[in-house]
Amino acid sequence: MTTARQIVLASRPTGAPTAENFRTEEVTLPQVGDGELELKVQYLSLDPYMRGRMSAAKSYAAPVPVDGVMQGETVAEVTVSRHPDFEVGDLVRAHTGWCTHAVVPATHVRTLQTHGAPSTTALGVLGMPGFTAYAGMKVIGQPKQGETVAVAAASGPVGSMVGQLAQLAGARAVGIAGGPEKCAFVRDELGFDAVVDHRDPDFAEKLADACPDGVDVYYENVGGAVWDAVLPLLNKFARVPVCGLVSQYNSTDAGDRDRLPAAMGTILAQSLLIRGFIQTEFAEEYYPEFLAEIGPKVADGTISYREQVVEGFDTAPDAFIGMLEGKNFGKLVVKVD
Amino acid sequence: MTTARQIVLASRPTGAPTAENFRTEEVTLPQVGDGELELKVQYLSLDPYMRGRMSAAKSYAAPVPVDGVMQGETVAEVTVSRHPDFEVGDLVRAHTGWCTHAVVPATHVRTLQTHGAPSTTALGVLGMPGFTAYAGMKVIGQPKQGETVAVAAASGPVGSMVGQLAQLAGARAVGIAGGPEKCAFVRDELGFDAVVDHRDPDFAEKLADACPDGVDVYYENVGGAVWDAVLPLLNKFARVPVCGLVSQYNSTDAGDRDRLPAAMGTILAQSLLIRGFIQTEFAEEYYPEFLAEIGPKVADGTISYREQVVEGFDTAPDAFIGMLEGKNFGKLVVKVD
Repeated sequence: MTTARQIVLASRPTGAPTAENFRTEEVTLPQVGDGELELKVQYLSLDPYMRGRMSAAKSYAAPVPVDGVMQGETVAEVTVSRHPDFEVGDLVRAHTGWCTHAVVPATHVRTLQTHGAPSTTALGVLGMPGFTAYAGMKVIGQPKQGETVAVAAASGPVGSMVGQLAQLAGARAVGIAGGPEKCAFVRDELGFDAVVDHRDPDFAEKLADACPDGVDVYYENVGGAVWDAVLPLLNKFARVPVCGLVSQYNSTDAGDRDRLPAAMGTILAQSLLIRGFIQTEFAEEYYPEFLAEIGPKVADGTISYREQVVEGFDTAPDAFIGMLEGKNFGKLVVKVD
Repeated sequence: MTTARQIVLASRPTGAPTAENFRTEEVTLPQVGDGELELKVQYLSLDPYMRGRMSAAKSYAAPVPVDGVMQGETVAEVTVSRHPDFEVGDLVRAHTGWCTHAVVPATHVRTLQTHGAPSTTALGVLGMPGFTAYAGMKVIGQPKQGETVAVAAASGPVGSMVGQLAQLAGARAVGIAGGPEKCAFVRDELGFDAVVDHRDPDFAEKLADACPDGVDVYYENVGGAVWDAVLPLLNKFARVPVCGLVSQYNSTDAGDRDRLPAAMGTILAQSLLIRGFIQTEFAEEYYPEFLAEIGPKVADGTISYREQVVEGFDTAPDAFIGMLEGKNFGKLVVKVD
């Protein structure tokens, strides 16, 4: 029998999560039934959406129950197979949650398709975050030649893809990132047309300078101060795909100034389109084309990306807490071994 | 030479407009040039959007300059024609502004097409407000059989059309109106499936009761407290056409509680579509089909509407001020004679 370690939600956080909200447990895995696989997890993906699952608040997905295993996607190796499509040693992408080993139905996993790129890309640039960027731009943002696309967390896995997709469409990519190191990466490695540091005291003014023709697509993944700076720059008929609001996930109190009237007033005055979405909505229609179109571009270096791999399963809670504070640099992945 | 009276913007209002913001002037009309018409105004339309034109704030249209004639649409009779398509006595719809007579280019007016309904309908149910409802529902709201559509100012020219279009599409129409008289009209005359009084102390709870399956389309034309009550009721993939925010037009100070995070959180959690629009954006594509489809339904009584006609050109400022407070009941029109 295989022993697995898993990290469960010990309690729901108020504000920023702390180490006390997590607990590591050991469990003995069940026998592998017909049509099931036993998996050994190699890499665990850490993503901002997991903060939402820790809360009981209404969201697009049910919360993790207290004492339940934290949800998450992993790259794993098949160690036992009772399904004809999989052999021992195959690498798969699976929703095992935060654990070292798991038994799952074979129908719930996908064979890795990374076009020769490292397996971890299946959790980032060629996985959920990359597809989130792709679907939001394809279906909602629809950047056109000569337009300006702004995106925050531009060194992260979603933002970095958004800007590069904008440029592939002939649009100008303006990135927003925190600190000189990330900004340099966005400008020099990702090749965005402009980058602005949101920690700059004159951030709003600098963003306006970086967008002399206004903003036609604002890909919203952070909210907060970036929203406030972008709002007055939005052009008539601008599109705002909303896939995340990481700046407000840990917030416990609303501000004391009502920003809704200004937002609604601009929606009306500029005929804005705002659309919240979760990538699963578009996966059936667009995931195959995403892999076919983007996979080769990642493999040949046309599309750049950055990963931060932290070592050891036990580091997951601290790494996750740091990510919500913007401490990671690139797609955050835990190497489980 | 013809003498015209006109009402100009004497000063920009702070908060709610007052009589002092308007001034009546007499002018002598110019000679009617080639291709022009002289018009005698019969009816002046008063609409909430005019409040926006009184402010210098950025909006979808340029503001009225101080000392400029207040903008507005009118039904007018041709008194002099120097264009072959128009004869003296023809009734037209024109953008003359708030005035009793005007000389305009013939290319700027439209012949009335009311399918036998009274000429005032060209300013309401068969004019800009009716088309605003039609375009917002056709292009953005897209109500489906069995869905729930909520709309405020439901006894007004936009709201009353929104609910009736919802029902024609097989959806449930839930109206919001102020006071028992308007609510009775929405329920009994317009035939909405439910109506809720926004002055009720338990408004939010009653609205929830009236929408047991949630809200799939919220046609936003008021903002404020109605938005707050609707937000938690919005279903996954709900659509929110935004054509007006009358509750905040007169507002001078933002509230002291930030309502934006809740709005954005719901946009994300429920994959909402929010789209601001001005009817002109859709006029070329949809206005002819609107008249062809809705005109006969107004003429035969399938679609109900209510107008409030106030008498005398000089009443316009007071009537307009009252409309922004919700004092009108139905489409507000000034009979100029």
